[in-house]
Amino acid sequence: MNKLVEIGEAIKRSNRVLLCGHVIPDGDCLGSVLALGLTLERLGKKVIMGGPDPIPEIYHFLPGLDRFIVGEPPEYEYDTFIVLDCSIPERLGQGYQEFLNKDLVLINIDHHEGSQPFGDYQYTDPKAAAVGEIILDLLDVMKVQITIEAAVNLYTAIITDTGSFRYENTTPGTHRRVALLLEMGVPATDINIHLYEEKPVAALKILGAALDTLTASTCGKVCWMTITREILHKAGALDEHTEGLVNYARSIKGVEVGLLFHEISKDLYKISFRSKNSVDVNKLAAPFGGGGHTRAAGCVLQGDLKIIQEQIITAATLAAGGSNH
Amino acid sequence: MNKLVEIGEAIKRSNRVLLCGHVIPDGDCLGSVLALGLTLERLGKKVIMGGPDPIPEIYHFLPGLDRFIVGEPPEYEYDTFIVLDCSIPERLGQGYQEFLNKDLVLINIDHHEGSQPFGDYQYTDPKAAAVGEIILDLLDVMKVQITIEAAVNLYTAIITDTGSFRYENTTPGTHRRVALLLEMGVPATDINIHLYEEKPVAALKILGAALDTLTASTCGKVCWMTITREILHKAGALDEHTEGLVNYARSIKGVEVGLLFHEISKDLYKISFRSKNSVDVNKLAAPFGGGGHTRAAGCVLQGDLKIIQEQIITAATLAAGGSNH
Repeated sequence: MNKLVEIGEAIKRSNRVLLCGHVIPDGDCLGSVLALGLTLERLGKKVIMGGPDPIPEIYHFLPGLDRFIVGEPPEYEYDTFIVLDCSIPERLGQGYQEFLNKDLVLINIDHHEGSQPFGDYQYTDPKAAAVGEIILDLLDVMKVQITIEAAVNLYTAIITDTGSFRYENTTPGTHRRVALLLEMGVPATDINIHLYEEKPVAALKILGAALDTLTASTCGKVCWMTITREILHKAGALDEHTEGLVNYARSIKGVEVGLLFHEISKDLYKISFRSKNSVDVNKLAAPFGGGGHTRAAGCVLQGDLKIIQEQIITAATLAAGGSNH
Repeated sequence: MNKLVEIGEAIKRSNRVLLCGHVIPDGDCLGSVLALGLTLERLGKKVIMGGPDPIPEIYHFLPGLDRFIVGEPPEYEYDTFIVLDCSIPERLGQGYQEFLNKDLVLINIDHHEGSQPFGDYQYTDPKAAAVGEIILDLLDVMKVQITIEAAVNLYTAIITDTGSFRYENTTPGTHRRVALLLEMGVPATDINIHLYEEKPVAALKILGAALDTLTASTCGKVCWMTITREILHKAGALDEHTEGLVNYARSIKGVEVGLLFHEISKDLYKISFRSKNSVDVNKLAAPFGGGGHTRAAGCVLQGDLKIIQEQIITAATLAAGGSNH
């Protein structure tokens, strides 16, 4: 916690802050950036919050999001650069990476296992379920009052990165922190509706179409779904609507590895890997030029679908201890 | 809490206990019965745990479930009858209801709004997200050590009745109690896999088939899916595999009422209602001879599908403040 006190002091000394998360922003990075940014503004600091990529629609309800700048970071005389939820500098995106070389106090807060060390002040806690947890602790050691807007952002950060407390990163401390946030008046039901019950019809149509392609290996340990451009167009869906579909392939009894083959352009396939108990899909995806985490990874391959599926499914079946025959 | 102390004392005086939940058992009723039953056995009491209806497969992992008797309660010289999660005597099922008239100390613990008062000792807390929460508090006031088996059952009770902490019944106290359970060593990831990632293929096939029938009203406030006997058979699914499907109809942006028309036998339809924000589906289902809760209700109608759908969808659209035209 001492390192967090040090970071709190450094932040208190800042006046003109550039604050960002990572490319392809998720709930934890957005919620953490907004919670910290809004709080620093209340402390009278000039704060620019932003990131290179557009905000997925489900996060549009987040308080303060209208202040979030998408694209290149505005040129300005900052004194401090705060980076959240970003394991390697490359995940900042090109425009923000350039600020790493400027004469700024660099503060880096993350929770990824094996996060690269960079920054004048670095705080990485792989046991934190979300960076949102760390920001809550940081505001606590800074003795700053947490507004309801910040609390809503932190609640969102935590529930999205824990899969509503289902993932193995969820700790007793996660639940205790959420209890505090609810006591501050966070409207949890509304937030859950925003995140999980405002889907476009097309997202359900593409789910239905993907489930129609569901196939299991002979051994039952690998299960996959396929979305071609044709299937996508027929469902009236966009690529972003396929987010999370791979989890359905893993959710079957006896399945250890779930796969989604998603044609992102003609003969170019994004393959998503998810595992349940034993297979390290980070290692499984590596020979195919991909990677990620132990339970979630991905790769992109060009070529004929049948050949790609044959290769990946064979490798997945072997890794799962199953047999193709 | 004083009433809970009183109940704890009454339970401590018991020796031969009959313990049950309600018909069509769910995670809260099973988890609560098993947690309390296993604990009372450890205190040296003779305990019979049971209920009239079969246990859904997803709960087969619950510790102590092999001790749970399905069907008629065994005849025996009990001195105490403990009823959990049962809002009205009818929900005990016929066999267990008969024990209400016997000369037994009757203890009734529930959390339903408007629960009927019955029993020598009655404890109803509508603010408790699950009866599992009350049992945890009860064991605490009884100063009984909670074993890991009991903790697993209580965790299951709480996560199933709160929809993984997404429903509006989730309180700060819910999260604090779960923090305690995790600290006792509850293997949360394994339990979540048992509950949500061991689906039969047929459950996903019927989800896909149901999504193929997804239709929205002109106003977009009502959305429904239809499962006929033919669709069910074609997917190789059983009626129990349709559990929870109705939530997909509600999960769409702008939808206030989600409906599932499920043909349970020729021309006999079970209609499930779910609402998001404003419609009381308990009231909506009432003119059709059904009922339930504000956000979840159901009814059963005999007749022609088209006519039934016309009636229900018109009523739902009106209730949602939409228009058919």
